Order: sequence, then C-alpha cells, then structure tokens
Amino acid sequence: MGLTSSIQLAGGSGGPENLRPLLATALDALGKGAIERDGPLPTGGAGAIGALFAEDVLPLDGSGAESALEGLARAFVAGAADPADPTCVAHLHTPPLALAVAADLVAGALNSSLDSWDQAPSGTHVEGQVIEALCGLVGYDPAVASGAVTSGGTESNLTGLLLAREHALANALGAHPVVTGIPAEMHGRLRILCSETTHFSVARSAGVLGLGEDSVIGVPLDRDHRMDPQALRSLLVDLRARGDLPIAVLATAGTTDLGVIDPLAELAEVAAEHGAWLHVDAAYGGGALFSERLAPLLSGIERADSVAIDLHKLGWQPVAAGVVLAQRASAFDPMERRVAYLNTSDDEAAGFQSRLGRSLRTTRRPDALKIAVTFRALGRRGLGDLVDRCHAQAHHAAASMREHPRLELYRDPVLTTVIFRYRPENGDPDAINAELRRALLRNGRAVVGRTELDGAVWLKLTLLNPNTTEPEIDALLADVIAAAEEEAR
Amino acid sequence: MGLTSSIQLAGGSGGPENLRPLLATALDALGKGAIERDGPLPTGGAGAIGALFAEDVLPLDGSGAESALEGLARAFVAGAADPADPTCVAHLHTPPLALAVAADLVAGALNSSLDSWDQAPSGTHVEGQVIEALCGLVGYDPAVASGAVTSGGTESNLTGLLLAREHALANALGAHPVVTGIPAEMHGRLRILCSETTHFSVARSAGVLGLGEDSVIGVPLDRDHRMDPQALRSLLVDLRARGDLPIAVLATAGTTDLGVIDPLAELAEVAAEHGAWLHVDAAYGGGALFSERLAPLLSGIERADSVAIDLHKLGWQPVAAGVVLAQRASAFDPMERRVAYLNTSDDEAAGFQSRLGRSLRTTRRPDALKIAVTFRALGRRGLGDLVDRCHAQAHHAAASMREHPRLELYRDPVLTTVIFRYRPENGDPDAINAELRRALLRNGRAVVGRTELDGAVWLKLTLLNPNTTEPEIDALLADVIAAAEEEAR
Repeated sequence: MGLTSSIQLAGGSGGPENLRPLLATALDALGKGAIERDGPLPTGGAGAIGALFAEDVLPLDGSGAESALEGLARAFVAGAADPADPTCVAHLHTPPLALAVAADLVAGALNSSLDSWDQAPSGTHVEGQVIEALCGLVGYDPAVASGAVTSGGTESNLTGLLLAREHALANALGAHPVVTGIPAEMHGRLRILCSETTHFSVARSAGVLGLGEDSVIGVPLDRDHRMDPQALRSLLVDLRARGDLPIAVLATAGTTDLGVIDPLAELAEVAAEHGAWLHVDAAYGGGALFSERLAPLLSGIERADSVAIDLHKLGWQPVAAGVVLAQRASAFDPMERRVAYLNTSDDEAAGFQSRLGRSLRTTRRPDALKIAVTFRALGRRGLGDLVDRCHAQAHHAAASMREHPRLELYRDPVLTTVIFRYRPENGDPDAINAELRRALLRNGRAVVGRTELDGAVWLKLTLLNPNTTEPEIDALLADVIAAAEEEAR
Repeated sequence: MGLTSSIQLAGGSGGPENLRPLLATALDALGKGAIERDGPLPTGGAGAIGALFAEDVLPLDGSGAESALEGLARAFVAGAADPADPTCVAHLHTPPLALAVAADLVAGALNSSLDSWDQAPSGTHVEGQVIEALCGLVGYDPAVASGAVTSGGTESNLTGLLLAREHALANALGAHPVVTGIPAEMHGRLRILCSETTHFSVARSAGVLGLGEDSVIGVPLDRDHRMDPQALRSLLVDLRARGDLPIAVLATAGTTDLGVIDPLAELAEVAAEHGAWLHVDAAYGGGALFSERLAPLLSGIERADSVAIDLHKLGWQPVAAGVVLAQRASAFDPMERRVAYLNTSDDEAAGFQSRLGRSLRTTRRPDALKIAVTFRALGRRGLGDLVDRCHAQAHHAAASMREHPRLELYRDPVLTTVIFRYRPENGDPDAINAELRRALLRNGRAVVGRTELDGAVWLKLTLLNPNTTEPEIDALLADVIAAAEEEAR
C-alpha cells in the first residue's frame, strides 16, 4: 500500500518546494504551447484538437507528475484560444492579470472553503472585505448591504431572482416558496420583466426556480436599445390589473452584444412605484464603476435591490469572480441554514461565523483573494484606467469601420464591444459573415464574435485587452475584410 | 491615461515571464505565512484575523503588484486553516495535490470558458474526456451517458434534481417546468425521497427549484444508518396511492458525518419499480470507486439516473472539481439553449460544438484540466492508494479511540471519517465536547469536526491527508483528551 512514500501536497511547510518545479513545468508549457499554437487559436478547427489529446485520460497506472503535467498542459495551451492575443476578441473572455492568477494559486493551495469558518478563517474575512468594498462602489450602505462572490453572472442572477421570488411572495401572501414551494394559486401569475436584450440566463433562472421561462415578459426598448421606463410602467399597470405578481424587474447594465445600459434611475423609480424588486445585471458593465468617465452611465444602480457584477469581465480576473450584492443583508434570510457540522448557533455566538447563508453553493473557493490583491495593487484608478483603455479601443475600431466602404457599423459603442458586418457587393450577407468568421477560426487567424440583431448576422469585437494597440485593431479589421473578400468571391 | 504602459497579463507570449516573479512571491507567502501561523490555524480565533487585514481593500490608488500580493497573500496564509496539517481534520476539506494546483494555474492563465467552443477549444475537449472517463468509472456506457464538471456537490445535486423534475413531469403530464413553471395541480404533490442523513443541499435544491423543502420526505434508516429499501418501497406505494408524484429518490454514497453508503443496488430496484429517478449523491464517496477494495461498496451506482461526485474530496483537487453525470445524455435536453452569440446551429454543424447545454452555469472555468492531469499522473491505482491510506487512518483512529477509557467511538468508520466524543466523569458532555473543540480552534492547536447525532454533540475526524501517520493521529487524540480534561475540570 506504499504507506512510506510521501505525496506532494500544495500546502504545509513542504508546499512551496513541492510546487516550485511543477510551476516551472506549467510556465514552460504556457510558453511552448503558445509557440506551438502560433496565434490566437490553433488551426484546423475542432478536428485538430483531438490529435493533441490522444492518450487515455484515466489509465490504470499513472505516468507520473512531471510527464502528465508537461504533456497535458502543453496540449491544453496549444489548443486554447488565448484572450491575451489582440485578435481573440469574440466574447467577454478577459485576459487575466498575471497578478490575479498568482494570487489565485495561493487560494487553491490551501483549499479554503467558505461554507464554515474553520475551513477559511482568512478567506471568510477577505470575502467580507471585498463585498463591503463593492457595496461601497455600487453606492450601497456597506453597513446594511451584503453579498457573496459567485461562479459568475448566471449564479448571481439566479440568486438575485431567488431573493426576489421569496420577497415578493412573502409580501403578497406570507408564503415562503423555499419552504412550501410555489403557491398553486400563483401558477402562471408570477412575472419577471426584462428586455429582449437581457441575458439568456435570466430565462434559464426562471426555469430553474420553477417559474418557467414563460414567466419572463419582454419590455419594449427605446430607440437606444434600452428598456423603456414608460413601457415598463404600462406593463406593470396591466399586470397588476389582471392580478399577476411582478416579482422582479431585471435591468441590464451592459448587454452582451451592444453594451447597452438600461436607464437605471428611471427604472428604479417605476419598480418602486409598483413595489417590484429591481435586480441589475451588471455582469459586464459593473466594472465601468471603476472609471470616473463611465461610472455616471450606471447612475441609479444604488437603488437596485440586488446587483450582479462579474470581475472576470471588466475586472481582469481569471474565472470565477462573479459577485451578487443585495441592498439589505436581510434579503438573504430565506437562504440561511443551520447545519450541525458547519455553523451551529453556539459556535457562531462564540465568533466562528461563516458565510454559508450568502451563497447557493456549499463548498466555495475564496475567489475574493485574487480580487482583493488586484484591488489593492491597482486601486480604483488603476482599474478605471484599464476600462478606459478598452473603451477607447472600441471607439477607435468604430471609427475605422466607419471609414471602410464595405464595413457597416451597427451603432456607436457604449462600453467595449463593437458590432459590425461586412457588406458584400453580391451574395447573402448573413452567410458570408457567418462563414468568414468560421474561416478565421479554422485557419487560426482570429476569434471574432458573431451575433444576431434585427434578424441578421453581425460580427462583434469584444475589446478587453488593455495592451491592444490601434494598429493591431486595424490589422484585425484588414484580416476580416480579406476573409470576407475570399468568401464573397 | 497611460496608454503607453503595458499591463502584465498571464497569457500571451509574455505570460510566463510576467508570472514567474509573482509566483515566486506567492510561494514565498505560502512559506512565510505558514511559519507565522505555526500550526493548522492561527491562534486567537476570529478576533485575531481582522488584525492581519488592516488596510483598505479598494484604495483610490494602488500599491503595486508585488506589495499587494506579498502583503495580502501572506496574511491570507497566516490566517488560513491548512488541511495539509495532520491536525486539520474537521471537514471534507482536502489538502490538494501540488500537481493539481499547478495544472489549475494553466487553466486560469488562459481564462478558457466552456460556454462556447471559441473560448475553449482544448478545454471543451478535455472536459469531454474527463466526463467520459468518469462515466466509465461509474459503470455507465460512455457512449450514451454525459455530464459536466460543476462547482461542487450542491450544484451537482441541484442539476440532478432539475433533470429529475423535468423528466418526471414530462412523463406524467407532458409538462415542461423549465418552460411553463411547476403545474398548479402538482403543488404539494411533487416529492423527493431521501434519508435524514442526506446532505442539506438537497432540501435547499428543492427550495431553489420551486418544489419547497416540504417536498422532501425522509425515508427511515436501517440499523446501519442506511436508507431502508423496504421502507422506501412502502413510502412510494403510499405516495402513489394518494396521487403524489415521486420525482426522485436521492441516495447517498458517503454521508458527510458517518460516510455511510446507502444500498444502491436495492434502492435502484425499488426506484425502477415505481419509475422514480434515482440520483446518487456520491460527492464524498464517489472517490472510493478508485479503490479496488472499497469500490464494491458503491455497487449498483451504475443504475442511477444521475450521480454527483466531488473530486475536491476523495480526489485531492483544489476546489472546484465537482461532477454531475447522467446515465442518458438526453436527460440534459431541457437544459439545451441556442444563443445567437454562443452556439448557433450552423456553427455547431460546422464542428464548433460547445458544452453550454450540460451546465447551469454560463461562464465556466475548465476545471477538467487539473482533473485530467491528476488522472494521468496517478492513474486509477494511484488514486485508489490515496483513498486506501485515508481509510486505513480512519481505522487506526477508531482503534485508538476504542482503547481509551474516556473516548467513545460512535461506530466503525466506513470511509475516512470517525465520529467520537469525550465522556467526562462529571458535567454536560455536549457542552464539554463543543467547548473543547472551540478551545482547540482558539489556541490554534487543531481543527476537529463537530456534529450532532441522536440529539448529542459528537466530534469528528475527517481524514483526507494521505501523508498523515498513525503517531500523528494518536498525538491529535492526546490533544483532544487534554483539552477535554481542561474543560471538564
């Protein structure tokens, strides 16, 4: 049984020396894999990836640490899409700061978990500090507000909508759906109001929560693609008249495609008139709060009952670094649990308090550490500068698109995305734009985004790399045009 | 705006050189913080932690990368509970392998995300391979089964129960709760059957899913604390007779406290008789499948409709490394989504397939990479050896407890936990056991677990460190006894 051989763990006094050679191997794989890839992604499309991973993933006997790490890490890097490459701009797929990745290693090595104090004394404290700072950034009173770090916007939106569901039904009927289920008399009458540009995870959350996707009602947009407060007001009046219960208005601060920010202050006003919970999905746009220039776009967010922010978007963190905040800590009461082996009341009274009741998860890595290190290293101004750089890149890209006769800009960028397409002289523009994107993927030249607006296919640049230069953006556009001309031929 | 200064990213050709000095700082913090802590956790309890983190977490101006990382990482380590210390044994809080932590760095540096192919060409492939290997381990047909890596057992159980809810209602009524919500006529009639030792996340999931915690029905236990198949059968007959719909039987393979494994094969038989979905929560016990000696305890798991396994428990991964598996990939159909910017059908037809429909999350780090590296390095035998070592430790601890006149062993260990308590000559045993545990926490000597069984307070050792020796276990027990004598005085 080999009881004599010692296993190399990441923690303990031997941890640093166990990690050192393996980290050297990992860095080596990052370097060599990038050379092998030679661009933003590998050539050859999905078919080529399998060849990088030919061996059995779970053999009966292992091949040893160095060999396994070297081989698999290098294949992983060679087969990855690297957002640090200026031509990898399809998604809210942020190139993380080296600093944050290094800090994350420390969290991983100790495996702290936030479901009990005695698994994470320092992790518990750091998450509290990070949440407090973010509550302040949003404009909440940190003494009253609360929240948690999440796996991302989807979990944050799910949590916000769960709190809204509990709040609305407790107020309207004294019902507690987490305990008794969704009341039969409310079937088909519980409503979530959002716009058609809202992230799909909202409908998905409604599905998870037992409300069903059909509970989601689309509020018309104004000319700027923002949720129209007057239209929201009319809908709320109509819903109330027919006895429906609007459990939440879900506004977006930074839609995935256009970066549009709903008029939060006005929506907060309307939601308050009707006693509806306001959740703001600022997964993308929340980071704009770091920027003095852009923060005013989110004015009114402090009136939201709950907010989602992803710091693995405009925050340059490795995934996961989502955050959910609630204006009042008491909103989390329906999620509180007493668990005999985690948080008994006598242990809590003795000062051993956990953050179990703030999260839908149980085991939970302290992702707050990397966030705290980044905050302390860059400060609000440093992070604001990164946001401003990417915002300026988007404006440069838009200006270049406007100058080119065959490129059509959808509209001026709001945050750091730019939507455009190639207008062919002949041929189906939808097919050509979709195919040119796939061609760029297949030949390993660029990872450009793609979406659908007004029934047509559009391309998207999501600019999140603060180091990208204007000539690099212009070169990327030249590549897009060349690929388009190839397709249109 | 400083457009000239380059930001240090983890990816790209400069990534390795950007990371190298920061990782040296992180390792230094791991070493120095551990010396400062000088034991499994810091002395002084929660009050002492705040002093380690005196500075503002989000200043206006940053203090720079090195300074922030050095200060915060060291404070984090000094204030952590380190599961690599042989006296840190309260929870399923695994000391991670150095290898897995190093591999995780690579996933973080590139920020791959599994919600679209073009954010994770290699990550998508690796997750597929890991899931296939785990389906094989469980005894599923990998060609038919499917699954995803999750944030942990809670998300895995939530996902399994969501699949069960959709399956049961589609079969019974042709209803699709994700779309239309929970049917009004089924209010209070949808049932989840499990035992009282089931993890609390199951009740919580029922709450999230709109079924309510009241939907959870406890099945009586047999003398070995296992769910009684006959009792389950009777309950199912009764439920059917009164028109209730049992959407899932939830069996546990490795309860958190006792490590008890329900009789899976018999429960599968009963569930099948009544057409009820069987979900097996093997978050803890799933890793026993690596061990030739212990795997037979989970016999029958291959008949489950869905399974949860946490490789950040008996798998020595840093969090998160949860897994949810389903016997039939088609079970995930209700979770499938077409999203214009993620997975259009023409892109999928061209081979750019994502794993979006396998997970409740959207952005998702490729936690499969560290798992794959660990599997390849250790093989099934190597992992089985680690499981066997911890199992042997538990038996040694139990034997030592039996020999001591003032220690009471609750029962023989099944996996790697041991439940016991101190029997004082005088005084309230519950108060003394609870207080001695807190005293060990406060004076930084040990992190011992605590739970409640049969209305009494018990202590718990969760043995997950393969390097722990028998003398270390005996020394820990001596510390517990000394603390008890101090309290009982």
